[in-house]
Amino acid sequence: MLENVDLSKSLPKDEYKKIMDDLKIRMGELQRKAWKMNIPIIIVFEGWHASGMSEIINRFLLTLSPMGFNLYTTGRPCYQEEQKPLLWRFWTKIPQNGRIAIFDRSWYRRIIIENNKKGKTDKDMQRCLSNLTYFERQLTDGGYLMIKLFLHISKEEQDNRYLEMKKTGIPQFIIEEEERDYLKGYDKYLPLIEGILEKTDRSSAPWTIIESDDKNFATVKILAKVMESIEYKIQDIENKTLMEKNQEKDDCIIPNIDSSILEKVNPDKSLTHDTYKKEKKKYQKKLKRLQYDLFRNRIPVIIVFEGWDASGKGGGIRRLVKDLNPRLYQVTSVGVPNQNELEHHYLWRFYNQIPEAGHIGIFDRSWYGRVLVERVENLCNVEEWKRAYREINEFEETLSNYGTIIIKFWLHIDKDEQLKRFKQREKTEHKQWKITPDDWRNREKWNLYLDAADEMLTKTSTSWAPWTIVESNDKYYSRIKIMNTVVDSIEKELRERGLQ
Amino acid sequence: MLENVDLSKSLPKDEYKKIMDDLKIRMGELQRKAWKMNIPIIIVFEGWHASGMSEIINRFLLTLSPMGFNLYTTGRPCYQEEQKPLLWRFWTKIPQNGRIAIFDRSWYRRIIIENNKKGKTDKDMQRCLSNLTYFERQLTDGGYLMIKLFLHISKEEQDNRYLEMKKTGIPQFIIEEEERDYLKGYDKYLPLIEGILEKTDRSSAPWTIIESDDKNFATVKILAKVMESIEYKIQDIENKTLMEKNQEKDDCIIPNIDSSILEKVNPDKSLTHDTYKKEKKKYQKKLKRLQYDLFRNRIPVIIVFEGWDASGKGGGIRRLVKDLNPRLYQVTSVGVPNQNELEHHYLWRFYNQIPEAGHIGIFDRSWYGRVLVERVENLCNVEEWKRAYREINEFEETLSNYGTIIIKFWLHIDKDEQLKRFKQREKTEHKQWKITPDDWRNREKWNLYLDAADEMLTKTSTSWAPWTIVESNDKYYSRIKIMNTVVDSIEKELRERGLQ
Repeated sequence: MLENVDLSKSLPKDEYKKIMDDLKIRMGELQRKAWKMNIPIIIVFEGWHASGMSEIINRFLLTLSPMGFNLYTTGRPCYQEEQKPLLWRFWTKIPQNGRIAIFDRSWYRRIIIENNKKGKTDKDMQRCLSNLTYFERQLTDGGYLMIKLFLHISKEEQDNRYLEMKKTGIPQFIIEEEERDYLKGYDKYLPLIEGILEKTDRSSAPWTIIESDDKNFATVKILAKVMESIEYKIQDIENKTLMEKNQEKDDCIIPNIDSSILEKVNPDKSLTHDTYKKEKKKYQKKLKRLQYDLFRNRIPVIIVFEGWDASGKGGGIRRLVKDLNPRLYQVTSVGVPNQNELEHHYLWRFYNQIPEAGHIGIFDRSWYGRVLVERVENLCNVEEWKRAYREINEFEETLSNYGTIIIKFWLHIDKDEQLKRFKQREKTEHKQWKITPDDWRNREKWNLYLDAADEMLTKTSTSWAPWTIVESNDKYYSRIKIMNTVVDSIEKELRERGLQ
Repeated sequence: MLENVDLSKSLPKDEYKKIMDDLKIRMGELQRKAWKMNIPIIIVFEGWHASGMSEIINRFLLTLSPMGFNLYTTGRPCYQEEQKPLLWRFWTKIPQNGRIAIFDRSWYRRIIIENNKKGKTDKDMQRCLSNLTYFERQLTDGGYLMIKLFLHISKEEQDNRYLEMKKTGIPQFIIEEEERDYLKGYDKYLPLIEGILEKTDRSSAPWTIIESDDKNFATVKILAKVMESIEYKIQDIENKTLMEKNQEKDDCIIPNIDSSILEKVNPDKSLTHDTYKKEKKKYQKKLKRLQYDLFRNRIPVIIVFEGWDASGKGGGIRRLVKDLNPRLYQVTSVGVPNQNELEHHYLWRFYNQIPEAGHIGIFDRSWYGRVLVERVENLCNVEEWKRAYREINEFEETLSNYGTIIIKFWLHIDKDEQLKRFKQREKTEHKQWKITPDDWRNREKWNLYLDAADEMLTKTSTSWAPWTIVESNDKYYSRIKIMNTVVDSIEKELRERGLQ
């Protein structure tokens, strides 16, 4: 993509000024329109050193209302960012609906730099690129407009600019150590970048090469490209809305005719109180030790709790963390998303909550809400929750690639047991707050939830993040199975990684 | 406060369990009640090394619903945190209404550690403590409940615990280098801590010493204290609501009889186009150089733009940043707060936006909204905006103590000029979006805004953050005065600090 680009294009100052005066006004109009239509926009700037990126970005910013965008400069990750997967810092910065996030260098620069570090293999690079594909596709599928720009200059031009910088003595921006190789390695990096651009040039998130030997030309091309992309996106949305209006609702869902996994589970296994107490002590002691092994080795763990209302998720979690160090674990209760969360991609709020390397993140309900409550209650459309199985698998694969141990529980009780527990909650004064009309309503949709849970268990049990169904009619049995599974999974992983 | 504490208090296991079972239920009820009443709660845990803090905190957490709290562990600041004033990381973590933020060590530990570093003087400590006082008072004045707990053990007990830790070989949490002195310096730190506790023990944010030689006793005392504090707070609010109901509204404001500063300003100064162009070029060049001087010396700058509608804030800002590096400046447009911002202290969203050391943060409208639009439109009550003058001065003093250069502009036009500009906006197609019914409404309240601006200029012009009134009927004059003031202020500061 870079080899045969004609870099001689340029624009004289007067012409540039005239064009810009016009484009500025139109850009302003488009920005306001996109804002009103709630379109979230991501603009990525990549390019060579000395391609004039910061000056060009500034010119571009001056055409925008500062009310509507955020600029993120991507440098070396800080300590906190190093304790999370590479894409975390970008996930947390995706724009809310109607806003523009501009990345002054992005995940691409990070991948290029990281890839150059010692001990990195081709396989690491492949894995990186596939995580990246997931990331971009999830966003564009989710309605984000993604514009990727590469500021291209020739090697000669780069050399000239380096020389001139030296001469004029304008204080150079501090170049971080890790960038030095890239700074001087035009020829070395050309094929690498070429390859990355080609592999990540998709119709939903295409690359545009910006000829930047002349900054005026570059600025105008960027502005034109951004405006064109926004215009297409707006048309696209308007067409879709029209089509949806003209079309008959086709939401009929084929009932689940596969055999149910959950129907075959007997939730009635039990333990005596004595065995329970003994086992609980044993596992809590083991967990207390294991958390430090995890911390020392900087391995993050994610434990997901899903299951029927009143199936004992909260109680199971409390026993699990009883002797843990609160500095090393965190329980996230996932409820109805707030306004801010609703204005982002649905995975955004979970990326914000993933544990640091070495910490344990426990989720009392989770991203699986997308294919459970959101599916059953029609809080998202069919296409969205159907797509979510793949998205969730990709999300978990990305975390697993980073080294995260993922343990997922479905706490299973039968309908009678649930009724018993609901009634008990109503009777016990300090438990009444736990039972709401919602719980009774959900109960009426038991079969819809059963279908949803079944499909979820089938489609999202992966080698990197398997489900464990926990028979939970008996709380003692349930809690011990949870602890036992957590301990075994962690110990197995530590052994397999040669850490124990 | 620590010297004569009886540390022999203890609680046998059986008794502890019985008490805890009861307290847990009541704590749950109180947490839900505080949540419903929208009370934000901050709980600070401080104490000696080996005081059992993490275990005790975990026991405390297990009495809470994970839905309603966040635990923050305070260690060494990361890179990003080092580029902001010490209290920044805590300001950004204050809870939203109805939630509990728990700090496992806090600003106190940071102050103790920082104070021990080379080159720190008594004066630094005093300044730190006064910033801290501002912080806590602003929060408690703003309705936050603040509970501060110090986990106290004797030196003998500490020594015993260190010994035991060595024996049992339980992997010790990694102690950061900077903590080592505190770890071993019980006698050295005792008077220091004693002094800090005494100076920061205020009725609105008092300290409670927790005798922690026995962990059971400590846990119960903490729980009891927290519950008592929440109960008091609830009563307090209920009493206030009652009083307000019984009281006649006493919102009558004494009209401003002081002479107006702004009335005396003649906004009509002007410049020729030629002078304007020449001066603009000159200052933009200077600013381009100065931004790197600021970055090299890690000095943050804040530039505030306030002024009448259509007084030219946006245009002034655009000329100011024209040649700057977008990696080193940021424009924040301050509009109506969103839901999330409304659920925090009003200064919270501005703390989230202050520039890193070495960067320039430009605010198109700012925290002064509190004493301008919020005052005039009755968006906060009289007591709140009256208190805000002090709070804003304190806020800016805290930033200034950290080394921030603060420059504040009031762009002044007269009523006729505004009318002219409004009409022009209505006529020009691409400017119509800039003029809304709100603007016309605000215009009708010109005199109320004038009073508010006058009082603001008088009460918040400080030596560390003075106001500059910019005569803005002529845009050329206005823009040049802005640039000139910014350049002069920065150059003066650099000289005074011996950096130029």
